[in-house]
Formats: sequence, C-alpha cells, structure tokens
Amino acid sequence: MTSPKTTLRLTPLAETLPAAVPFVGPETQERARGAQFDARLGANESGFGPSPKAIAAMADAAHDAWMYGDPESYDLRVALADDLGVDADQIMMGEGIDGLLGTLVRLFVGQGDPVVTSAGAYPTFNYHVAGFGGALHTVPYRDDHEDPEALLAKAAEVGAKLIYLANPDNPMGSWYDAARMEAVVAAIPCGSLLVLDEAYIDLAPDGTAPQIDPETPGVIRMRTFSKGYGLAGARVGYAIGPRALITAFHKVRNHFGMSRVSQAGALAALRDPDWLEHVRAQVAISRAEIARIGAAHRLRALPSAANFVTLDCGRDGDFARALVAALSAEGIFVRMPLKAPQDRCIRVSCGQKAEMMAFERALPRALACCTEI
Amino acid sequence: MTSPKTTLRLTPLAETLPAAVPFVGPETQERARGAQFDARLGANESGFGPSPKAIAAMADAAHDAWMYGDPESYDLRVALADDLGVDADQIMMGEGIDGLLGTLVRLFVGQGDPVVTSAGAYPTFNYHVAGFGGALHTVPYRDDHEDPEALLAKAAEVGAKLIYLANPDNPMGSWYDAARMEAVVAAIPCGSLLVLDEAYIDLAPDGTAPQIDPETPGVIRMRTFSKGYGLAGARVGYAIGPRALITAFHKVRNHFGMSRVSQAGALAALRDPDWLEHVRAQVAISRAEIARIGAAHRLRALPSAANFVTLDCGRDGDFARALVAALSAEGIFVRMPLKAPQDRCIRVSCGQKAEMMAFERALPRALACCTEI
Repeated sequence: MTSPKTTLRLTPLAETLPAAVPFVGPETQERARGAQFDARLGANESGFGPSPKAIAAMADAAHDAWMYGDPESYDLRVALADDLGVDADQIMMGEGIDGLLGTLVRLFVGQGDPVVTSAGAYPTFNYHVAGFGGALHTVPYRDDHEDPEALLAKAAEVGAKLIYLANPDNPMGSWYDAARMEAVVAAIPCGSLLVLDEAYIDLAPDGTAPQIDPETPGVIRMRTFSKGYGLAGARVGYAIGPRALITAFHKVRNHFGMSRVSQAGALAALRDPDWLEHVRAQVAISRAEIARIGAAHRLRALPSAANFVTLDCGRDGDFARALVAALSAEGIFVRMPLKAPQDRCIRVSCGQKAEMMAFERALPRALACCTEI
Repeated sequence: MTSPKTTLRLTPLAETLPAAVPFVGPETQERARGAQFDARLGANESGFGPSPKAIAAMADAAHDAWMYGDPESYDLRVALADDLGVDADQIMMGEGIDGLLGTLVRLFVGQGDPVVTSAGAYPTFNYHVAGFGGALHTVPYRDDHEDPEALLAKAAEVGAKLIYLANPDNPMGSWYDAARMEAVVAAIPCGSLLVLDEAYIDLAPDGTAPQIDPETPGVIRMRTFSKGYGLAGARVGYAIGPRALITAFHKVRNHFGMSRVSQAGALAALRDPDWLEHVRAQVAISRAEIARIGAAHRLRALPSAANFVTLDCGRDGDFARALVAALSAEGIFVRMPLKAPQDRCIRVSCGQKAEMMAFERALPRALACCTEI
C-alpha cells in the first residue's frame, strides 16, 4: 500500500501498525494454488462437524435472520450458566474468543501497558495487544509447555495488566491438570488479570478444567463453540469472570454484533452433549491416527489434549516451514508453531478418516520434497 | 455494579465510560413484559424477510459451519465489486455497519480528537467515538434533515477527523438526492473523512445514491445487508473507499470475525435482485399504510426514503416517550428519535400486513393512555 500519512489522519498508534493479516486463510491459499485442499487440517476446526441438531437449528433460524440477534444473548447465557454452575451475569458472549480478547485488551491495555504471554503462544492475542499499544513481555516455553510460574514471575516483575495462558495450549497441545491450574490462579500477582484461554477444554481429559469461583478477582476464562462443538464459522465465544469485569465489556463492545443464526446454533449444540461426546471419541481416534502416520516417517507426536497433534520433525524451523509448504502443494492444509524451538514442529488438526488418509498419502511425498533442506 | 477501580485496572479512558447499553433490545423488553411483541417495528428490520434463496444458502452453509469463514470474504467482495462497479480491494466487509464504524473510529480517533455529527443522528456512531475518547461536536437538524453544509462548516471549524452523515437519514427518514450529495463530497474540508452511512440506500428512490469514485480521498461509504436485504441478524456490512483506507482496516480488525453462514446468505441475497425489488415494493406499501394509520390519529408522517416512517406526534418528547411505552404495553415495539425537537416523533418500521393491522389496533388504545401527559 502507498503511505497514507498525508491523506489518512490515522491515530499515531494506528499509523505504526502493520496492515498484515496474522493468519492467511485457507481459502486464500486455495485461490493461490488454483485448487481446493484435499484435507483442511490447519485451523483446528472440527472436521466432525457441528451437532445435526445445531445444523437444524441454524437452518430454522435462517428464516428469522431478518431480526437482529438478542444483544444480551440471554437464552444462551442462561443455558451456559446452568451448564457451568455460574450466574448468567458472570458470562459475556462475543464473536469468538478473538473478538472477546480484542474487547478485553481494549478495556485494560493502553499505550505502553505491560502484558505477559509465552513466546510462541496465540498470535491473535499479541495482535490485539499491539493494536492497543501494549508492551508485550514474553517468557519461553518449558519442555513444550507454557511455563505458568515463569509467566507469574514475569507479570510480577513488570506489573503486567494481563497474563495470557492457554490450557490446553495451542500450538503445542500440552496441558496442566486442574490442581496445577488452581495453584496458578492462587498465585496471580495483585493487579494482574489472568486471561485463561480454554478454547480446547472440551477436548481435554477429565480433570483438566480447574474449579474457579467466577468471582475470583484476577482471572477471566475464555471458551468457545468453535472447537469441540464444531461451530468455528458461527463465531460464538464466551468469557466467564467476575460480574464487575463482565459488566465492563458493555462499555465498549459491539452490542448487536452476534449473529442470530449463530446464537441459535450454539444453543442447540449446547443441548446436545451426546454429540460432544461423539466428537471427543472421534478426536481421540484421530489423534492416534496422526501420531501413527507421523511415527511412520519419524515425526514424533507430542501428547495433546486438544483437537490437533503437534508433530516434532526433529529439525529446525526452515525444515518445518518447507514441509508445511510441501504439504500444501500436495493438497494438505496444516500450520506450524511460529517461534523457535517450537517451530521445529508442524501442527495437524484432527479430522475424519478421509482427511487422515489424504494426509497419510501426502506426507511421504511432501517429506521427499524437503530432503534438500 | 460495584466500582471496579480497586480490582480492575481498566485504562483511564475505559474507567470513565458508562457500561450502559445504547439500545435495549426488543427481547429484553419482551422478557420484562412477560410476553412477545405482536409487531416488531422498532429496529428497522425487514419484516418481509430475506430472499428465500438467502435462507436456503444459509441452511446449506450451516453444514459447513465447522469451518471459519474466509477472512477475506473474497467471493462476497468480488460479487459486490461487480455489482457496484468498483474493485474488490475498495471494499471491506465487517460485522454490520456497527462493527465497521467501531473499527473506523478506532483507526482515526484518539483522545480529544474532534468528530462532527448531527445532534440526534445515529447513537452507535457516537458510542464508538466516546469509546475511543473522541470529542463529539454536533450541529442541529434543519427541517428534520441532517444539514450537510452545517456539518462541513463545523468540521472545518474544529478540524474534524470524521464527519458522520446518513443518507437516507435515520431516525427521520429524510434524504438528499445524488446531486446534492455529490456537492457535499466536493466540499469536504481537507483532512476530514466523511463517513457516509448508506444503510437505507437500497430503499431510497432511484437517483439518491451519488456517483463517487471510490478513490476519492475524504469519503468512505457504509452499506449493509441488514435493511433492504433483510439480513440484520446475519451481521454483514461493508465499506467502500480508497484502497489505502480499506487496507488500513487490516491493522486492527477481527480478521476471522465474519460468520461463514452469514457470508453465504449475503452472497445469495445479492444474487437475487428480484427479491430486493419485491421488498422495495412492499416497503412502499407499508410506508403508505403507516402514514394512513398515523393520519387517522393526527400523527403526521414525514416523507421517508427508508424502511420506516417517522410520525410527528405534534407534542414534546415526554409525550412521544409515553406513546412508545404505551405502544409497548399494547404489544407494539417501536422506537423514537432521542433529541429535541426530533423527539416529538415516533419511528415505525415497515412490516407485513399483520403487523400493520396490529399497529392500527394498538395506536388508538396507546394514545388514549397518553391523554394525561
């Protein structure tokens, strides 16, 4: 783009921000390669699909799409509250966790305000922090896990307003059990807010989700219908936290931002726990498949509590990047961690049998293309 | 809410913002009154519904809701570009005009930056300006029209970064023809960006939409699928403007914020111009109905180029507020302009025959409740 400085009077902060897209979407890649992917395994979407009941509810709600969605998402929040054992006013709905993260960062982070995350953790959180001028401090992963104690220590050191921690973690798939997370919550430095991203919690082993009284100051949890419930394209996430914090979202959020069709789909999905169990079982099968396929080519599967498996290629980031590109050329969409040393890996989302077979066929061909690296 | 000052380290700006909801949704009102409305005529939704082809496309796309939407909304932008005779990179999609306004204000408006609008124009724009600390300057309506020359003069006087102008106007329904708008665009002060909100343009008389080269510096147009296309609940709006400005949205927008189902619905709606013509005809009939019903009770219909009619009650804001409340008690959801002297009116959205009949039955009863005002 040409420099807009003379014609566009952007804010000084906006002037400094790049217009880069954090993730190039698979459709963009498909347009570039002139063909659709055979297997869409790069965005941790749920190839097992949403509940048929959710699909039916969305089809029904399409007739009502002339009406704005309820800006309170009342029915959905009440159902979630009932499910979670919290109050509906301790829940805020938003356009995916991405949307909620943006609003949260906006509420807390001004120019130069310190924020702590792990080097290589969720880039969209970092994008929002940069977008509001925050100063991001990172700590390294430890043994392919986020390092909670290092995050807390860094937060105390810099006086962090926000601390980002995902459990299970993306992109590594690693996780901590509930007791460990409860200890982390107990140790949050005064004045810091822990943003506990639980996007993948529905797919984690029982005993992963910590017990946290939602009024606990200093912690907000983020969850989504995008992963286990298979509704990434509907854009429905939610935050659980203290009433005073949840209420603060009303200060700046796009009140009428939720799709009515998506609200209906999420509600129906929530009311079909059998489908979630089905997906959990399918994900477990697919995780084992990805591990088996990787192992056949000396790519080591890291343990995963999410709907993806991170495969350690045992080489460097250049090799993994080449492998991701070669897989793309073979019709397989995957992604990879962005920071060393995690970038020695590729990340493969779980999927149905056909996608697993496509991945199995493509992997040796893609690896053969990478031998000169 | 309790003051969060001691536990929530909000930004100084966020600390000052109210947590009030700009518009209380009709569902909230229905929950309060314990019954659904008989006629939902308050949010300028399209009771004529979306195109059956859009409904079918959304039902189809619900099966694909496990996939994130294309963050580029490529197919939709290309179709719009073709339809509008502009380039796809001169179009930015967003979660309704509300979402796009929020992003635009964020890009341009920092603490104390001057912004100009009309007193009583779209409150959600003002909400976003306040939300980023902007200083809002207003000029009064003139004869129930926004006053473009006064807006331009005020913008020049205060050095406005943004100027908001809706054509057709909400909440009054008034409008200017293309030639007048082209003259306005030609007179935009250097350094100001005109935000031309054309949410209702699909329902306006032919000859209302001005010819504007999208590369014209200093103007961005906002349009939506919420009104004529009847997809308010899908949340699909778009902006048309210079490439450099459109590109700047990528700096801060929620790239994966669009619902995949909504993208499919909007594309199908765009490809069914016959349905839009059908809606335009129905809106014309309903406008005449609202005017007739109002006239029978000495409420004068203002001319409207939108899918609503603003009825002049000939009294003050207290009376109109009482009438809105009395209509609500009678099962009719309507709204009203918020600023004097426009608040002497109520605003009634167009709707189908059944809704018009419900309004006709309720109006005399509601007026009878207001006689003591």
